[in-house]
Amino acid sequence: MQSKVINFKEKFTKFSDHWSPRVIAEMNDYQFKLVKVEGEFVWHNHPDTDEVFIVIEGTLSIEFRDTLVTLEAGEMYVIPQGVEHKPVANAECKIMIIEPKGVVNTGEATGKLTAQNDLWI
Amino acid sequence: MQSKVINFKEKFTKFSDHWSPRVIAEMNDYQFKLVKVEGEFVWHNHPDTDEVFIVIEGTLSIEFRDTLVTLEAGEMYVIPQGVEHKPVANAECKIMIIEPKGVVNTGEATGKLTAQNDLWI
Repeated sequence: MQSKVINFKEKFTKFSDHWSPRVIAEMNDYQFKLVKVEGEFVWHNHPDTDEVFIVIEGTLSIEFRDTLVTLEAGEMYVIPQGVEHKPVANAECKIMIIEPKGVVNTGEATGKLTAQNDLWI
Repeated sequence: MQSKVINFKEKFTKFSDHWSPRVIAEMNDYQFKLVKVEGEFVWHNHPDTDEVFIVIEGTLSIEFRDTLVTLEAGEMYVIPQGVEHKPVANAECKIMIIEPKGVVNTGEATGKLTAQNDLWI
């Protein structure tokens, strides 16, 4: 996997479901994951790690308990470890998430949106 | 720093020199760095870590001892730990590098292109 050029647009053609991260690369013990999101996710946090969101295409809002941020394509945000957040996208948005291998998408808040982990494309 | 939306294009307006990485964010003990590159870098490797290159604008070639890869905007590459490489860009190219905090741009091959580390914008 790691010897190849990874093209985000080409990788995004390989799946269509929402809120289900696909791993495209590993760097040491970190993974790069592409996700298509639309609608509201669940409130959750990641007790053991920061998490990076990069918007590739579309608009992503991230609700925090005390504020709301909105990211456009070409923007990134670092969610600090343990901070509750809820991603929301009014229309389909394509994002990349970077975090340690093993992190579950819904953090401590497992439920129907909890996705299979370590799913490579 | 970490509570703000980071816009790559806006950050790239803040410096103009080549081969001198600027830190824009930290995630745990990893840093996200923007770099403007043009011309040939030096052969080097990073003995202790993988390194990720993402092209934001332009075209980047990476020479390896046995091959050459070329990345366009929207593409990424994982340089495996310890693998010798030499970035080359015929025209100015804007890239993001992701690697552990403390990694020096020229790896083990220190020299005139060795940049100041941990320079934030």
